[in-house]
Amino acid sequence: MSEFELDKRLAAETIELGRLNGCLLLLMNDRRWPWLILVPMIADASEWHDLDTEIAARSFETAMEAGKALKQATGCDKINTASIGNMVRQLHIHVVARSEGDPNWPAPVWGFGEREEYRDGESGSLEQAILSRLSPEKQW
Amino acid sequence: MSEFELDKRLAAETIELGRLNGCLLLLMNDRRWPWLILVPMIADASEWHDLDTEIAARSFETAMEAGKALKQATGCDKINTASIGNMVRQLHIHVVARSEGDPNWPAPVWGFGEREEYRDGESGSLEQAILSRLSPEKQW
Repeated sequence: MSEFELDKRLAAETIELGRLNGCLLLLMNDRRWPWLILVPMIADASEWHDLDTEIAARSFETAMEAGKALKQATGCDKINTASIGNMVRQLHIHVVARSEGDPNWPAPVWGFGEREEYRDGESGSLEQAILSRLSPEKQW
Repeated sequence: MSEFELDKRLAAETIELGRLNGCLLLLMNDRRWPWLILVPMIADASEWHDLDTEIAARSFETAMEAGKALKQATGCDKINTASIGNMVRQLHIHVVARSEGDPNWPAPVWGFGEREEYRDGESGSLEQAILSRLSPEKQW
């Protein structure tokens, strides 16, 4: 059994916000959509059913909480939640805020166009709006 | 509070396999990928966090079981699990079997090309392979 280490591609494309219930909470560094990623800190997990039932339940509940926080923080029309992993096999859960008229609406965000990184400091207010809505004792 | 009724578009595009832990279990009528959809039988739910915590946990666990069964039944490379709902707002969970080289691999299935319906009887063996792997008392 190897130790958990964040996938290099996920690390390169995201901003780490902290740890939440055994998951890494990441903000996708893509200014086109407010987009969180949760990564259960378990080595060698690729599918949901690779996790222990209890860890899976806790991770899913955390994704649901993150979705609620993201919806409140952004006032978006719909949360899109997905575990795809066809390219990055480390289990990770996308939680994306979608709104009518956003890039590629109503089709999904994955595989659409090129990532556009946040400019300096641009993501700060979004990060704060998200973190202020998640139970503080769960952060860090 | 209205009564649960399956969304008309979901009904038109799927084959009903039965009921599993309070969810409708549907097979997407698209022969390009083995593709299940679970619909928690709760009226007016659009986001995961619209569900009671217990119903959400049970529905998610059911989606995870369905994913495991689908992976075993098909021998696919990766299960893709998602709740998107930008077009059909009734909460529904996609559980899709993906394999290297399948249509649009490794990009997602949603929004890609046109649905191709199964021919007469063609989905029978897939349906049986799925249902034989889900706990029988949970069917119907």
